[in-house]
Parts: sequence; structure tokens; C-alpha cells
Amino acid sequence: MLSRIVSSVPKRAAAFSSTSMAKRIEKDAFGDIEVPDDKYWGAQTERSFENFKIGGPRERMPEPIVKAFGVLKEAAAKVNATYGLDPKVADAIQQAAREVQSGKLMDHFPLVVFQTGSGTQSNMNANEVISNRAIEILGGKLGSKSPVHPNDHVNMSQSSNDTFPTVMHIAAVLQITSELLPALTKFRDSLQAKSDEFSKIIKIGRTHLQDATPLTLGQEFSGYTHQITNAIARVEGVLPRLRLLAQGGTAVGTGLNTKKGFAEAVAAEVSKITGEKFETAPNKFEALAAHDAVVEASGALNTVAASLFKIANDIRYLGSGPRCGYGELSLPENEPGSSIMPGKVNPTQNEALTMVCAQVFGNHATITYSGASGQFELNVFKPVMISNLLSSIRLLADGCNSFRVHCLDGIVANEKRISQLLHESLMLVTALNPKIGYDAASKVAKNAHKKGITLKESALELGVLTSEEFDQWVRPENMIGPSD
Amino acid sequence: MLSRIVSSVPKRAAAFSSTSMAKRIEKDAFGDIEVPDDKYWGAQTERSFENFKIGGPRERMPEPIVKAFGVLKEAAAKVNATYGLDPKVADAIQQAAREVQSGKLMDHFPLVVFQTGSGTQSNMNANEVISNRAIEILGGKLGSKSPVHPNDHVNMSQSSNDTFPTVMHIAAVLQITSELLPALTKFRDSLQAKSDEFSKIIKIGRTHLQDATPLTLGQEFSGYTHQITNAIARVEGVLPRLRLLAQGGTAVGTGLNTKKGFAEAVAAEVSKITGEKFETAPNKFEALAAHDAVVEASGALNTVAASLFKIANDIRYLGSGPRCGYGELSLPENEPGSSIMPGKVNPTQNEALTMVCAQVFGNHATITYSGASGQFELNVFKPVMISNLLSSIRLLADGCNSFRVHCLDGIVANEKRISQLLHESLMLVTALNPKIGYDAASKVAKNAHKKGITLKESALELGVLTSEEFDQWVRPENMIGPSD
Amino acid sequence: MLSRIVSSVPKRAAAFSSTSMAKRIEKDAFGDIEVPDDKYWGAQTERSFENFKIGGPRERMPEPIVKAFGVLKEAAAKVNATYGLDPKVADAIQQAAREVQSGKLMDHFPLVVFQTGSGTQSNMNANEVISNRAIEILGGKLGSKSPVHPNDHVNMSQSSNDTFPTVMHIAAVLQITSELLPALTKFRDSLQAKSDEFSKIIKIGRTHLQDATPLTLGQEFSGYTHQITNAIARVEGVLPRLRLLAQGGTAVGTGLNTKKGFAEAVAAEVSKITGEKFETAPNKFEALAAHDAVVEASGALNTVAASLFKIANDIRYLGSGPRCGYGELSLPENEPGSSIMPGKVNPTQNEALTMVCAQVFGNHATITYSGASGQFELNVFKPVMISNLLSSIRLLADGCNSFRVHCLDGIVANEKRISQLLHESLMLVTALNPKIGYDAASKVAKNAHKKGITLKESALELGVLTSEEFDQWVRPENMIGPSD
Amino acid sequence: MLSRIVSSVPKRAAAFSSTSMAKRIEKDAFGDIEVPDDKYWGAQTERSFENFKIGGPRERMPEPIVKAFGVLKEAAAKVNATYGLDPKVADAIQQAAREVQSGKLMDHFPLVVFQTGSGTQSNMNANEVISNRAIEILGGKLGSKSPVHPNDHVNMSQSSNDTFPTVMHIAAVLQITSELLPALTKFRDSLQAKSDEFSKIIKIGRTHLQDATPLTLGQEFSGYTHQITNAIARVEGVLPRLRLLAQGGTAVGTGLNTKKGFAEAVAAEVSKITGEKFETAPNKFEALAAHDAVVEASGALNTVAASLFKIANDIRYLGSGPRCGYGELSLPENEPGSSIMPGKVNPTQNEALTMVCAQVFGNHATITYSGASGQFELNVFKPVMISNLLSSIRLLADGCNSFRVHCLDGIVANEKRISQLLHESLMLVTALNPKIGYDAASKVAKNAHKKGITLKESALELGVLTSEEFDQWVRPENMIGPSD
Repeated sequence: MLSRIVSSVPKRAAAFSSTSMAKRIEKDAFGDIEVPDDKYWGAQTERSFENFKIGGPRERMPEPIVKAFGVLKEAAAKVNATYGLDPKVADAIQQAAREVQSGKLMDHFPLVVFQTGSGTQSNMNANEVISNRAIEILGGKLGSKSPVHPNDHVNMSQSSNDTFPTVMHIAAVLQITSELLPALTKFRDSLQAKSDEFSKIIKIGRTHLQDATPLTLGQEFSGYTHQITNAIARVEGVLPRLRLLAQGGTAVGTGLNTKKGFAEAVAAEVSKITGEKFETAPNKFEALAAHDAVVEASGALNTVAASLFKIANDIRYLGSGPRCGYGELSLPENEPGSSIMPGKVNPTQNEALTMVCAQVFGNHATITYSGASGQFELNVFKPVMISNLLSSIRLLADGCNSFRVHCLDGIVANEKRISQLLHESLMLVTALNPKIGYDAASKVAKNAHKKGITLKESALELGVLTSEEFDQWVRPENMIGPSD
Repeated sequence: MLSRIVSSVPKRAAAFSSTSMAKRIEKDAFGDIEVPDDKYWGAQTERSFENFKIGGPRERMPEPIVKAFGVLKEAAAKVNATYGLDPKVADAIQQAAREVQSGKLMDHFPLVVFQTGSGTQSNMNANEVISNRAIEILGGKLGSKSPVHPNDHVNMSQSSNDTFPTVMHIAAVLQITSELLPALTKFRDSLQAKSDEFSKIIKIGRTHLQDATPLTLGQEFSGYTHQITNAIARVEGVLPRLRLLAQGGTAVGTGLNTKKGFAEAVAAEVSKITGEKFETAPNKFEALAAHDAVVEASGALNTVAASLFKIANDIRYLGSGPRCGYGELSLPENEPGSSIMPGKVNPTQNEALTMVCAQVFGNHATITYSGASGQFELNVFKPVMISNLLSSIRLLADGCNSFRVHCLDGIVANEKRISQLLHESLMLVTALNPKIGYDAASKVAKNAHKKGITLKESALELGVLTSEEFDQWVRPENMIGPSD
Repeated sequence: MLSRIVSSVPKRAAAFSSTSMAKRIEKDAFGDIEVPDDKYWGAQTERSFENFKIGGPRERMPEPIVKAFGVLKEAAAKVNATYGLDPKVADAIQQAAREVQSGKLMDHFPLVVFQTGSGTQSNMNANEVISNRAIEILGGKLGSKSPVHPNDHVNMSQSSNDTFPTVMHIAAVLQITSELLPALTKFRDSLQAKSDEFSKIIKIGRTHLQDATPLTLGQEFSGYTHQITNAIARVEGVLPRLRLLAQGGTAVGTGLNTKKGFAEAVAAEVSKITGEKFETAPNKFEALAAHDAVVEASGALNTVAASLFKIANDIRYLGSGPRCGYGELSLPENEPGSSIMPGKVNPTQNEALTMVCAQVFGNHATITYSGASGQFELNVFKPVMISNLLSSIRLLADGCNSFRVHCLDGIVANEKRISQLLHESLMLVTALNPKIGYDAASKVAKNAHKKGITLKESALELGVLTSEEFDQWVRPENMIGPSD
Repeated sequence: MLSRIVSSVPKRAAAFSSTSMAKRIEKDAFGDIEVPDDKYWGAQTERSFENFKIGGPRERMPEPIVKAFGVLKEAAAKVNATYGLDPKVADAIQQAAREVQSGKLMDHFPLVVFQTGSGTQSNMNANEVISNRAIEILGGKLGSKSPVHPNDHVNMSQSSNDTFPTVMHIAAVLQITSELLPALTKFRDSLQAKSDEFSKIIKIGRTHLQDATPLTLGQEFSGYTHQITNAIARVEGVLPRLRLLAQGGTAVGTGLNTKKGFAEAVAAEVSKITGEKFETAPNKFEALAAHDAVVEASGALNTVAASLFKIANDIRYLGSGPRCGYGELSLPENEPGSSIMPGKVNPTQNEALTMVCAQVFGNHATITYSGASGQFELNVFKPVMISNLLSSIRLLADGCNSFRVHCLDGIVANEKRISQLLHESLMLVTALNPKIGYDAASKVAKNAHKKGITLKESALELGVLTSEEFDQWVRPENMIGPSD
């Protein structure tokens, strides 16, 4: 009975099962192997697919890496044409590579992250798909490796050891610049708008979770805004080292089998194709053997997650209630909370965002340990590092967007509740110190606390000032900044 | 140009796009909403699907959770029938729930992990799919909530707050007992077999990476075997607390809206359906508000990963070479290493396994922080906790299986190389201490080191013993255990 | 000006500077070296002291490790006497070792954690101090190595590679059983007492931080109690593998240079000396090359920290206020909060305890990475692993004790506030469903929420029931458990 | 018997026990309390000392924080004098504060990290010590609070909530600029020197730990050099946000009770005193409630640790042997390895450095979780955050210095071994491809591998080239860069 329920490794991952049963023969140094005839991949991809049944479709190589291979292979073909690659072949490779970039060949990339630590097999997957598609474009026969050979032509002047770090950087930069930074910027702008909107609402401050001196709700949100302003700067700060490409280092960083100028030319082409600036890495040994730039980038995302965690957490506590919590904010209601209790709005977006942050913290641990574990001329934790980095980028971008649209922009301040709490607070007694002296003020506060009455009631009861004096002296609006 | 390449949130996740364009209306407390007519899900699922576009298909609720919902809903319906639920409705629910268990309705569960932190929406997804499928079985109309209501019938006596922790435990136990423990056991058995196979091969020991006194290769592998024997015990050790189910706690742990006996009966039914022993949790407040059992389980997996990391790392170093490394082991060649260099076998399975371990370390960090962050009567990091735990379970199971089949079982000891290194080593001089004295032995070793000659050559050169004496006294086989 | 302020490596760590300037000469294989004449340590300790100026006194080898060396060296000497060690020498070693156990020679152990990864130098520190002190006892000359030699006698049949893992386990077991478990047990008992004390106080429940159905404050604390009951079980669960000693494995695990029976006899002696059960490890290769038992133990402490984090966090939020927070609990006031605001009690013990937990989470990461990084026959992260484990044990024990004495035991329930919140809540409307129907109940709640009135006021305003009926039907005491 | 051995909380931490038994009375809002008469601290320090017995002396507030309080209090007194503080009092405070800066009052700062999460008690410790010392300077009576009051004068215009984050940043910047950056710079320079020294030594490359194409040892070290060049840039990159001071925010960030200009003036004075540039934080709400700059800084140190881990690990493997490892490098021998085996040099500095890195990884986890856990207007994990950051800074600085002096600078390349490995390698066959064709070259390599002979022997045996041709074509020096 049990076996029905358990989720285990399928014979063949469903997402990549072929619709037809037709097979063709592909070859590599190990000999012949059957592959599904409706797929462009070749022998090495097929072997890896069989040899690494780890984690299933959920763990397959992230889409941005596949697309970045499309970018790189187009760039390399273009540059190789200037170094003697047959223009017809180069053109076909470029066309096929652009199809990979577009995502429409995604079904031809079945490999998972947990494979060779150099990502070799994903590089070969790209070479095989592009060569077969290019062969098709040129009217050849799939699997024939002619007129476009996966190694000799698509991978010309390249090694997995330099292509994979190159696509790591391309993918990270593209996802950061087009997904994460826009998401953070909009998030910051929404926080700024709320800070402005709330600039006149004075509320009780809380330190150690205890009632403290007042501030405006706008000031409180200005702290969040500033965190995200810094977050943007932190993420931008890691881009310069991510914009450096390992391409040209080939097997061990020396650039054996490349021509002088190849590395620089490829970086220039990648820049053109993507519209983002890339340069060749100044030291290829470092670029293959370490991925410190990825660890560094993850460190920035980790900091961003710490900021977001704090913001999302504050907002859900400030929105707690409706009757028995802080209740200062009303968060938008997006889905039924409870069919019984109106006003029960679960802070679901905050929950999703804090879960995203927890995931980013964990991803960072994975990346850190992997980054530390390179050996000699190669770090062989490449796929797990970039997979986790791209996960963090995507989750933070999506999480910020979701939280912004479905929660932040719709937050309403419960001004009545905020005002009530502010005026019930005993902390405003601070304002009386210069008027009636510390000792008398202290008595007012203690008396109020003991009897559960307001400061004003207490002060009047103790006869230390008049009602008018109280109203004139105890003004929260005078307590929210330095004095002249 | 850029927009073509970047991977961003799709309008609608491809995996869950409908093949037909037909829509039907579903309702909830928020009103009407259109859902694809070929899907069983209802209004709340659809809202969540729209409101939480975070991470895409890769981040959808893990399959074992969906299946565990099938288990739980079958059990609950059966028990509810004994508390008054219409038998016809109960039967239809059970039938539909069994279909969910089998995985064949997986396409009807589109929601992602990063949603409400209580997993409410996945619970509703299960309720909606099962009620609609049960309605269909009974000849009713999808979306009519009659004769089977998602809340009143499928979710009867339940709350998301107790169902989700229940399925977390069911899923974890099932995946551990049917996937991870068998994988670890086979892995241990393979290590044991290698330890036995290598029991006569004496090799140089290495401490601080430096040549040390000898041991057998079998002894070295016995250390690995013992690590995995312990790993199995560690994983088994966390099962007792995972076998406790929160079901019956309802909203806050009190069991409001349940009848006495319901909790125990559901646990008994779940045990019957799964063939695994489950009991009702002795304290439901803890079971909803904390997920310490998940943190604990992850701690065990973290320890297992530390063991595997060490083993995989040792083996790849022992297999390094073929000429310029340790070279004591030959690892199976599963894919072309290099087209030029025969004998270049990249330790790809070791690389995959150490990447798995790095992922498990990170997952553990995510789980730990999430587990620490519960609030009052509810921990709202449930989906991210179980998603990471199931990821660790699966990756470890798959990683062990893959490494065992494609590497461990095929490891061959390079006896010639092992023997050569052993006899070149200077450390065997230790055996001469009782024969010629420490000082003379030391001179033999130092002379050998300085001149790059063997111990025997050095000893003979110094004239401290005869060739026969050397051969008689310097016997590694006498150095691999305590003396009598 | 700057140099005055900065804290840098001192010429010689102050704590270990000698009061006298007198020096004596000690020797090792590297030759002569001066050591302070009022210290028992010898040449190898002195070299390490000079060569590893990392972290200063704060990072010196933890006291429990030094004491455990005292235990081990006493046990080894006693056993060695049965294998031929001169009884007079053995007795003197035992006496000196007992002085090390007592802590009174702590000033003679100056070395830091960040030294050789095998802890060799701390083992030699113990050997040197004990031999010199034993020499002194026997009337010999410090530094003469006669009649008690640090290696030949104190370290007889031992290697750093087996002594250091042995003292790791001894220290961990002793600190857990005499410090941590008692602290957790008292903590649990105090929680239980509070749970009992609060058993009649009905309060509003909170899920997603939002008002939910009621429970008793005693039930809420029962959840915490159960967490710590489990915490105790988790910590006890790791003891069996910590009670296994590596002693007898010598350099690589084979036990070369020991006699059969030595390992078992030492474990028996250690048990006698400490009053705690220890046994010889069944596989010495694992015991030297991996420290999975330490990673496992740290995993348990990590889980305990997650539990404590949740408990301390809940309690500080429940005690937040006094006017503008949850305000359900009053925490003891231990130090002036603010000179102005009476009733401002900062939850300082909660803050200290959550900081302890954060430290334990980090220590666990250090231990995990270190545990995974063993190589061949030896893990060389021993000192940092045990240093972090002992830190976690101590901080958790001290943190629990401090929190219990200075906070937990003095917590008072603010029954008035609790009752007020409970009765203001709209969630009690749930009780009306069976009486007036879901729709009418829903209207009552919505009307109350909209107008900011109580449920009762709303119900009477809508005329759906009488005041007597409301009082009879809406009874929180009937909402805190399953029904019959 | 057990109790003798166990290390538990002492009645009074030894380091702070007084040499005299004399006591004096100090007071605060809680009343009278006895303090040791030879200490300057007052009532609040004494209470905290009693209430937080967590972790013992090892966990006391780091020295750089105490010194930074000296800096801040001097700066504040100077600025306060311009706002009306009695110049005589201000002068005495400045003098006392300078004594705190110098470290000579360190024994008067007994508090531990695990205290109030705002560090309030350490701020009061500074206020009390400075006021009592200033009283002494002015001829007053200790404990009289006259003529220098700890709150009214030393803490004038300040709150713990802004002073503690201020000293966090001061301490971090000073330790980074005067300890860590110089240590990294010297480390990089030593790597560069080795890279230059080794520029002509051609060696076998290793990818996946397997023999690969050659590179120079200088190129290999250039990768390490580049990592540290980047490390320096990464650390420098976090300074700008650490140079921003929270001072002036007072209790909640509004600056209540300060005068306009105070914040800016204090930052300017701190700059003068320290010789490092500091500015007032642009948003004080962020500066009190979040410590993202600390999380960010820790992220950079985490990246540095990942780099160092890789470098130290590579070097110890390259130095493994002497006979049975890689053996390409000889590391300096700093202490006896083994008394038997000459040439056994344990890579102890590498072990210490990798342990440092593991500690930094854990510290980073602590800092991350703590940084994410701020609440409303205050983060109350301040002491544990800065304690861990300063630990990471110090350990990395000390670890780099120790490794550089005792290992790196003394590394010698074993050119004979390097050359032997290079020429035994089969990978050089790559050079024959363009000469004799891929197929023939492949046969040469396979034949050599199979028979265990050299490439040259194989080639000659197969008759595919002459000895002269081989020597002319197979030239590693032509394989270490791109071709023209």
C-alpha cells in the first residue's frame, strides 16, 4: 500500500519523457547510445541524464543558465568566425543559440544541478542541442555531427571549465539587473510613498518592545526605505565583479587552445547581445578555481534578506489584531481569512516574504561552503552555487513584487488606534520634566501606571498642573526631533 | 534585446496552463472567480495562485505533501463517518483522496511553497480538489459544493493549522522510511562489502595529510561504514517524534470543533493507510506552534551530510591522478572525461554527492531559522520548513543511490600503487625502534629523506642491519593493530 | 593617535605573563627554548604559544578540555601501571593529573583553539605540565624530563590523535550531564509550574498574529513545557555516542603501540574517575577521522536553541507594553528600565537568551562545516569543533538558568488585561454558530467590527438574542477543548 | 567526585574578583548596592554583573567596544561643553575617557555580551566608570555622582540606543583599518612575492583533482593573489556604511533631547580622535533598528574566509607527503611533527587558518540571524552581533599574519618533484595533436597508461615519431598561455 504513496525517483523524469517512442543513435567516446528522436540532445547529455537521477525535475539546471549558454555560444561562434570557423557553420550556430536564448528549446535541457561539479555535462548539453539544431537548419542529419560538430565547432576554443563560470556570471547579472534591481527599486519607492503618506501621523515608539518616546509613522517607514535604498546599493556593489567573464581560461586558466584576443572579443560580443557590460576576467586562474564573486553576491542578497525580514516582521506585528494586537496598520485582505471573523486578515504576504528570506539565508550557507571548497585549478561546486544564487535572486525579486503589490501598497494606517495608544502611553511624561521637574513628573507617571489612568488624569489628581498646562506642554509633535 | 533572454515570472506558470480555454465560476467568501474548467481546484486555490507568483513551478508544494494530504483526507473522512458524516459523501471523499495519494491529480495542485505560512491555501487546494472530484464521482456539478463541500465535509473537524503539520509529518516519515533509510542501508552495505574486499590491502595512513603509520584499506573503509551505520541510527532516532500527528488540535491546539477521540482515530487510520505507525501528538499546542521535530530531523540529516561529505571527499582524493595524485583507487568511468587523456576519470559522482551535502547544510540553516521563528499559537514557516526537509531527504537518498551504483560499487584498489607508496614511505621506520634503538632508526629515516632513497637502502648504507633483518623486522602487517 | 585605541595582538597574552622574570630552559626535538620558570609547561607548549598568536586569551582552549586531560592522563597512568609503568611514576602522574582536573593549574595552559587541528599541542601541554609537576612531586628538576617524561610516561600508549578526541567526548559529556541537563530540567519544571499556575486563565489565542479562538494561558505554557521536555530527550539522545572514547586508536586508529585491552581499561578508569559511563569506541578509524557525534550533539543543541528562541520571543511579546503592547504578562524588573517611565520593564533576560540562541545557531554552522572537513585518517578541526560545542553547552545552560531565575519564575499574569482582550475579541462569535446560525453570527461579528463595539452590544443591537442568552452561550471556558 | 571536574558558573568571575575585600555603596533607581571599592563601576554595572552570569569571562564585552566607548564619551563631552556642560566636568570626563581608550581601565568592565540586547548596561558601565574616575580626578568621592554624574554628564544628550550602535561602528572600523586590512595587504604581498618567485616553474594542472594541462606554479599562486586583492577590495567596500554613526538618534531615532548639530559635531570629534573618517548616519531610525551594515560587513568577511579556506587547503594538499602525497611544496617546519619521521611537517598553520575560516562562517550565521531579528525602533541583538563581527575581524587578521609569517613566506617549491610529476603526466600528449593527429596521439596516451610507461616511451614504442621530435614538440612551456 505504501509504495503507491511514496514519491521516488521515476524511471524517467516525466517532464522530459518524449511524446514519441522513436529513438535515434548518438555517439561519443564511450560508444553508441539511444536518445529520443524528438530531442536535440546527444550522447553525453543522455549519459548524464541516466547517471544523475538526483532530485528530479525540480532540481534541473535553472532556465537562466540555459539561456546564458545561448548567449555565450552565439558570441563564441561569432568570434570564432573571425578566427577561421566556416561562416556557414558559425551562422547556423548563432541562429540555434538564439533559439536557446529565447527559451523555446528548454525541453531539450533535461539535466539536473547535481551532476559534474564543473557543469561539463550542461555545457555538452548546450553544445549537442545547438549542433543538432544547427545541423537541422543546414539540412543535415541529427546525430551526424556534420556539418556542425558539438565539440569542434560549438565548443571551439572553449572548455567546460571556462564556459560554465561564464554563464554563471551572465545569468546572475541578467537576473539581477532585469529582475531584482527593478523589484527592489519599486519596493523602495512604495516604502517612500508610504513614508510620505504617513509623515504627519505621530505614534508611540517601541524599544525592547516596550513603549517609548514617539515618532511619526512616516519616520518609522523612512527607516525601512533607507534599508532598501542601501539594499539596492549593496546589490549594485557586487555587479562589477560579476561582470567579469572567465571565458578564455579554457581548462586550467592558461587559455591553452585559444588565440590571443579571443577572451576579450567574446566578452565584447556577450555585452552586445545582452545589452549589459561584461569584461574578460583579469585573472583566469581565480575565475575557474574560486567563485568568490558568487559568494560575495550571495552575501549581499543575505543582507537584503535580513532587511526584508525585519520590515515584513514589523509590519505584521503592527497589523496584528484586530482587537488583541498592536493594530496600528490595516493590511489588505487578499483571500478569506476566516469565514467567521471579519477583520481577520492574515498577513500572508509577510509570511511568504519572511519564508523567502529564510530560504535565502540557507541558500547563502550552501553557497558559502561550496565556494570555500574549490580545489587547485577548479571549483567543482559550480552548479549548486549558481542554482542557489539564482534561486535567491528570483525569490527576492518575486517576493518583493508580491509583497509590494498585494500588501505594501494597500496598507492603511489606523489613525484612531494609533492616536489612542499614543495618548494612553505614559512615556509622554518626558515632556513634563523641564516644566514640573523630574521628581514630580515621575510621580505623575507612577500614579497613572498604578491606577491605570491617563497621564493627564494623574497629573490633575496630583494637582501638579492645570488641564490647560497639560495640553500645552504634553505635545507629541514636539518630541519627534532634536530641539533648536 | 535583453527582455528576450531574461527569465521572469510568467503570466501563468506553464505547467499549470490549461489545455482548454474553458472556464467555470467558483466562489468563496470573496465572491466569484474564474478557474480553468479542466482543473478541480476552486476559488481559494485560484486566488492563491494569482497572489503568490513567487519562484515559479520549481517552488511548487512538494509532491509528497500533496500525497500526504490524500492520506489525511481519506483518514479524516473515514473517521468523520463514524461521527455522523453522510456515508455516501464520506466514501466519495475517500475515493477522491486515494486518487490524490496516487499522484494522478498532481496537475491540480499548482500552488507554491511561498504562500501563507500555515499552508492554509494548500489545505484548501486539497479540500477543493477532493470535493470537486467527489462531486464528479457522485454525479454533481463542479463548483457547486454539493453534495460535497470543501470546508464542511472534506475539511470537517479540521483546520489548516492542524492538517498542515500533520501532512508535514506524514510526508517526512514516508520519505524517510521508504527512500532515505533504504538508500543509506544499501550504501552502508556496499561500504561494508568494499571494506571486506579490501581487508588484506595494507596502505600508508595519512594524518594532517602527511604520511603516517599503515592501516588496511579495509580498515579505512570500515570507518566509512561505521559512519553510515551511525547515520542510519541517527535518522531512525528522529522518527519517533515525527510519528506524532498534530491532527485534532484545530485552530490553536485546543481541539475546538472536534469530538473527543477524533485525534486518536485519525492517527490510527493514517497508520492503516500508510503502513507506518503514527500516533496523536501528546501536546497539540507544541505541535502547531513549533516544529522542533522538523528541526531535529534536519539536524540528523545535516550530520548524515557531514559524514557523506567526508567519505566522498576522501574517495575522490584517493582516486586522484592517474599519475600526479594519490592514485590508490580507480573510480568507475561513466562518461567521457577527456577525449585526449585515457585514464582521466573525473570523480563526477563524488562531486554530485558533495554538492548534495552542501545543499543539505543550507537547507538546514533555512529550517533552523524558520523553526525558531514561530509566534504564539502558530509557526508560520511551515511550507518552507517541510519543503527544505523533503529536499534534503530526497537529495540524500538519490545522492547515495547514485554514488553507490555509479561509483562506490565499482571502485577498484590500485594495489600496485598502494604497495609502492607504502614501501616508499619513511614511516615504517617505527618498526625498527625496538630493534636498533630510536636514535639509529631516526638516522636511517633522516638519511633516507635527505637522499631520496628507501628506508632499506638507507639502513643498509648506514650498516645498522642486514637485508634479511630489514625484511624480517619491517613488516607493515604487524603494524595494523594493538600488540598482544 | 590611532595606535593607542586599537586592540591588537599583544606581545604576550597578559593572562599568561609571568609574575617573575625568571626563565628556565626546556628542550624538544627542535632544541632549547626558554620558558617562564614559574610555569610547568615545556618546550612544545612554548613553541605553540609563540607560533599561534590568534585570537588572544578569549580563544584559549576551554577549561573543560584541560580538566578532561586531567581525567584522561590519570586514567592512562593507572592503566599503564598495569602494563609495566613504574608505580612511583604512575602515582606521581595521577596526583598531578588530579590537580589538572581540579582546575588549579589552569594558568599553565596558555594555548589557544586556533593551533594544530589535531590538538596535538594541547595534548603536549598536558603532558608537559603533568610531567613537570610530577617531577616536582618526586623531588626532581623541572625541565629534566626525569624521572617523569612527558612523552614516554605521561603520553604512554597514547597519541594526540586519540587523546584529543577522547577529551572532547569526556568534556562534552560532563558539561552536558552536570550543567546543561540540570539547567534544562529546572527550566522545564519552572515552565510546568507556570503552566499549572495559569491553568484557569482563559485568554485569546493568536494565529498569524491575529486574534483566534481562546485557550488557557496554562495551555499556552504547556506547549513551552513540552518543547523543553523534548529538548531534554534530544540532549539525552546524543549522549550514547558521546560516551564512546577514541582512546586506544593511537595515530591512525589501528592502535599501534598499545597493548590489547588498553582501550577498554582506560574507558573503565575514566568512568570511575568521572562517575559517568564511558566505553571504548567500537571503530577507532571513525573516532579519529570524523567527529559526527559532535555534529550530532550540536544538532540537538541547535534544536534546543530553536525551542528557546520561540519561548523567549513569545514571552517578550506577551509582556510588551505596558500600555501599547500585548501586556498579558508582567516580567520581573531586574534593573532600572527608564528613570522616567514606571512600568517600563525591558525584557532583558529574553534578549540575553535569544542572543544565546543566535550564538548557538552560528556555533552549529562552524561545527557542521568543520565536521564535514575531515581528511583520510584524521579530522583536523578538532579544537574549533569542541570549543564551539562547549560554548553552546555553557551558553544554553547559563542562559536557561539566568532566564529562569531572573525572569520566568517571576512572571505574573495580568489577568485583568487578559480578560479584557478576550472579551473584546470578535472570535468568540464562533460559539453562536450553532445557536443563531452562521449567517446571523457573521452579521453580529461584522457589525461589531465595523462599529468598534463588543459582540454582545452588536448582538443586542441586531436583536438576534437576549443579554441572558449571550451570557449563557458565549462562554470561552467551553471553547478550550474537544467536545464530548 | 564529579563536581570537582566540571566547569560551571563561578560565584564571581575570577578575572573580576577584587584584590581587596573593601566595598562601597553605589545607588541607582533600584536603591543601594555594594560594589568592590577598588573598582570604578557603579550600581547598574553591579546589577548586570549579578543578573547575567552567562558564559563567563570568555564572553565579556570585547575590548575594542570598551575602547570605542572611551572614544565616544570623550567626543560627546567635548561637544557637550559647547552646548553648556561645565568645562571642568567636561575636561575630567575627557581625561577619564582617554584612559578608557588606552585600555588601562579594562578591569573595570566586567560585563558579558549576553546582557540587555541594546547594550545598555555596557553603556552604563562606561558612564559609571568614567564618572567615578572623573570624580576622582576632581577630588570627589566615588559613588557620590558629584560633581560628575554618569547619566546627566557622561551620558548627556545620549541614549544607550544610539551610543551602542555608535561604538559598534567605531570599533569595527578601527579594527578593520588597523588590523585586518594591513594583515590582508601583507598576505597579498607575500602571495605576490611567491607568485613572482615561482613564475618559471611549470607544473601539472589539476581539475576535478585529476591531472590536466600544465601551468606555472606562479600562475597558480597568482590566482590566490588575485583572491586576496579582491578580498581587500571587498573589506574596503563595507567601510563607507560602517563609517556612519547612529549618535544623535537617542532613544528611538528622532533625536529627542539633543540639540540640532549635536550628531554632526560628535561624528566630527570621533573622526579627530581616531584619525578615521566618520559621519553622522543619514537616517537614525535605520541606524538603531537595523544593523544591516554589520550583516553586510560580515558578508564580506565570510567571502574573505571562503577565499582563505581555499588557499590554505590547496597549499596543505600541495605540501602533502613527503613521499605519499602531492609533495610539490615544502612548508616550513615550526614544531616537532614526529620524533621518528623526518620530513613530517604537519601543516599546522593551514589547520589553524581553516579553523579560523570555519569560525568566521559560524559567526556570520549568528550575525545574519541576529541582524534579521530587529523589532520596531530597536534591534536588540547588538552585543552578540558586534562580538561576532569583532571576533571574525580579529581571527582573520591574526590568522593571516600567523599563516604568512610561519608558513607562507617560508614555502619552498620542490622543483624536482614538480618536474617529475609534470613529465610523468599523460596530459602533455595534447601537444601532439597538431603534429601526429588526434587518433595517433590518443593511441600514444592509451598505450602509456596501459603499460605504465612515459608518453615518450610509448610514442617511440609505437613508432609515431622520433625521440628528437618528441623533445621538440612536447614542451610544457608552450602550453601555458593562448597562442598568437
